Amino acid sequence: MPPYDIAVLTTGDELLSGEISDSNTKTIAGILSTYGYRLRCSLSVPDQEKEIVAALQYLIGHVQFIIVTGGLGPTGDDRTARAAARTLGQPLVINEEALKMVHQWFTSRNRRMEASNEKQALLPQWAQPLPNQNGTAPGFRLWHNGCELFFLPGVPSEMQAMFKRSVLPVLQQKIPEAYPLQQRTFKLFGLSEPKVDRMVPYQQLPKDVEVAFSLEYPLVLVKLKASGEDAEFRLDQAEALLLKELGDHLMARDGETPEGNVGKLLVDAGLTLSLAESCTGGLLTTMLTSQPGASAFLERAAVTYADTAKADWLKVPTLLLRQYGAVSENCARAMASGLRHTTGTDLSLAITGIAGPDGGTEEKPVGTVFLSLASATGVHVKRYTFLGDRNRIQRMSATMALEWLRRFALQQLENRP
Amino acid sequence: MPPYDIAVLTTGDELLSGEISDSNTKTIAGILSTYGYRLRCSLSVPDQEKEIVAALQYLIGHVQFIIVTGGLGPTGDDRTARAAARTLGQPLVINEEALKMVHQWFTSRNRRMEASNEKQALLPQWAQPLPNQNGTAPGFRLWHNGCELFFLPGVPSEMQAMFKRSVLPVLQQKIPEAYPLQQRTFKLFGLSEPKVDRMVPYQQLPKDVEVAFSLEYPLVLVKLKASGEDAEFRLDQAEALLLKELGDHLMARDGETPEGNVGKLLVDAGLTLSLAESCTGGLLTTMLTSQPGASAFLERAAVTYADTAKADWLKVPTLLLRQYGAVSENCARAMASGLRHTTGTDLSLAITGIAGPDGGTEEKPVGTVFLSLASATGVHVKRYTFLGDRNRIQRMSATMALEWLRRFALQQLENRP
Repeated sequence: MPPYDIAVLTTGDELLSGEISDSNTKTIAGILSTYGYRLRCSLSVPDQEKEIVAALQYLIGHVQFIIVTGGLGPTGDDRTARAAARTLGQPLVINEEALKMVHQWFTSRNRRMEASNEKQALLPQWAQPLPNQNGTAPGFRLWHNGCELFFLPGVPSEMQAMFKRSVLPVLQQKIPEAYPLQQRTFKLFGLSEPKVDRMVPYQQLPKDVEVAFSLEYPLVLVKLKASGEDAEFRLDQAEALLLKELGDHLMARDGETPEGNVGKLLVDAGLTLSLAESCTGGLLTTMLTSQPGASAFLERAAVTYADTAKADWLKVPTLLLRQYGAVSENCARAMASGLRHTTGTDLSLAITGIAGPDGGTEEKPVGTVFLSLASATGVHVKRYTFLGDRNRIQRMSATMALEWLRRFALQQLENRP
Repeated sequence: MPPYDIAVLTTGDELLSGEISDSNTKTIAGILSTYGYRLRCSLSVPDQEKEIVAALQYLIGHVQFIIVTGGLGPTGDDRTARAAARTLGQPLVINEEALKMVHQWFTSRNRRMEASNEKQALLPQWAQPLPNQNGTAPGFRLWHNGCELFFLPGVPSEMQAMFKRSVLPVLQQKIPEAYPLQQRTFKLFGLSEPKVDRMVPYQQLPKDVEVAFSLEYPLVLVKLKASGEDAEFRLDQAEALLLKELGDHLMARDGETPEGNVGKLLVDAGLTLSLAESCTGGLLTTMLTSQPGASAFLERAAVTYADTAKADWLKVPTLLLRQYGAVSENCARAMASGLRHTTGTDLSLAITGIAGPDGGTEEKPVGTVFLSLASATGVHVKRYTFLGDRNRIQRMSATMALEWLRRFALQQLENRP
């Protein structure tokens, strides 16, 4: 979908000093996309007439609709109206209609109007004022060289209300049949971004279905986007084709999390779980318990740093620890089976490894992680070598453990009579 | 402080569809302002060559330094290098140095390189590649009509590291010294924002010291800002005055975390710790283990959902559980003392409560949380009623527990001969 001829210009020093990020652009873009429009670009400049003028001049030559926010207040650093007047070569005049609006705002609230508020009625000569239900600053609308400009206050609540009331209807009327942008997200695990890219069946995808990628480490997010009359239909086709290739790696969709889905799967499969974490320090447990209802499948979890802890809670033989060390295949296996023996849960999963930054050795470098899963069908264990800093290694280990649980639960559900 | 001739251009469809707000601009602007620089403008455009070209053309005529983020990935929707080449009228060529960087990234990690990764070495002919320690995409630097352009990946962690390493030094060298904006952050716990506001000694603060507030639930952040020659001196004064009023609630400063500081305190005080969590589901343990060296004080931790788990690991009498329930003062007390008895750690802390959304009752509504701390000096227990959703109740409970540990460790250190 081509971006429509709409741009946003936000003004305010705080946007360029790192104090806050520009939420007004996100708000406007979000509302627009639900109506099928997309911004062509967004610009932010400080509260300086010169900068606002330069930005307006650029945008007027570049797009058809410009939405400006900020700089309509009563104080000295509110310079948008002046900048607009200068850009369009119009004098600043007291706009009687706007002045009425400002007066009315105060009288209707039995409040005395400050002289400085009159400044808010100083608009470019041909401006059409836009009412502001929630504040003193009226917005205004201007036309220039076939371009239409809307000026709104920067206060998010005021801006949003006025945008919906005074701007959106104009766009809907003037921009021919926009179809909302439909979008589906697929969160994949176990493949690199380039690998996923190569597996996407671009050739077979229906045309006008856009594919976009992003990373939520360690997940690769694939987005399918389409708009137009039969968007839903084309997305259904695209989704089917995509999942034929990649469905095996799908851990979650829009609004879902891997841990949330794994929790549901365990409940559906009627499996109880106990966990023993070492290098992940409880991350896996916290992920699983961050959603309600975890107690339905999670019986208990342990973070066993000390060997004594592995010995009494997980029944790992001290001799084994001495012989192979806590970060070893044997220890992982003993942790999982020992835990399952104590708890009697259907599944017991153990993680032991070296998250770093210290503790790595020649044969067991930082990132060495052992996973083990004990179930009625036996005890599985595997060694991994994960890359990155402590945080990444912990996240990767926890997500890999979720993947083990996901696959086990799915198998159970399939094997059901 | 006048804006300097620096602009940021961020690329990505998601920036203009309302999916996310532009954090890279905020990050760059924030770093710049700590060095006394301010952005002149920032621009965002979709992943479309035409739009990126238009934006670059505008900025090249408008500012002296341009920082571009995004669109350097290996996939089809990464089009920044191509757009840069077209804007500057340079052919796209395989940059040998960049290719080495990409190759090296994979070989140093024993990973096979995808063909698509070669695309990441396709740069404008006269580009100087910039190394990327944290990802496969090299950045690059270009010069055009007295304007200097830096191209960085969009992944925030990669972008930030490369900006500090390859861009900031250039700006510092080329832009005449500015007075950096000095800033100090104080993370407070146990007071509401308005309460903190009332306790700030505004009258006595040296002039030109700005006070700003923000929330990092459940912490209230107070920022002191100053610039100019004697900024450090004025901030020292302001800090002393602020902490005279609020120091007792200070859990962390800039770049610190409450959990990190509590960990250090426990080590300094030579205290070992064991944890038993219920409603927080391991959050406290995960916070404490998210930093290296946690094993120096944390002996073990348990998340005991099932009563049987509380019984065998924490030695909570089944009778007590039946009589008072798992969410009770008696249970909390029994969990902490039972755990300390098993582990022999100096401190054992237990959390039991109802994080919701379900499970609340008349006399024990959602948000009811019991904390208990067992030490050589006895077992303390307290009931809280926290407000908010599951996530907030969990965070509040974990942070309150950290506060207990902080105060205990501080006392120990003070009572030392």
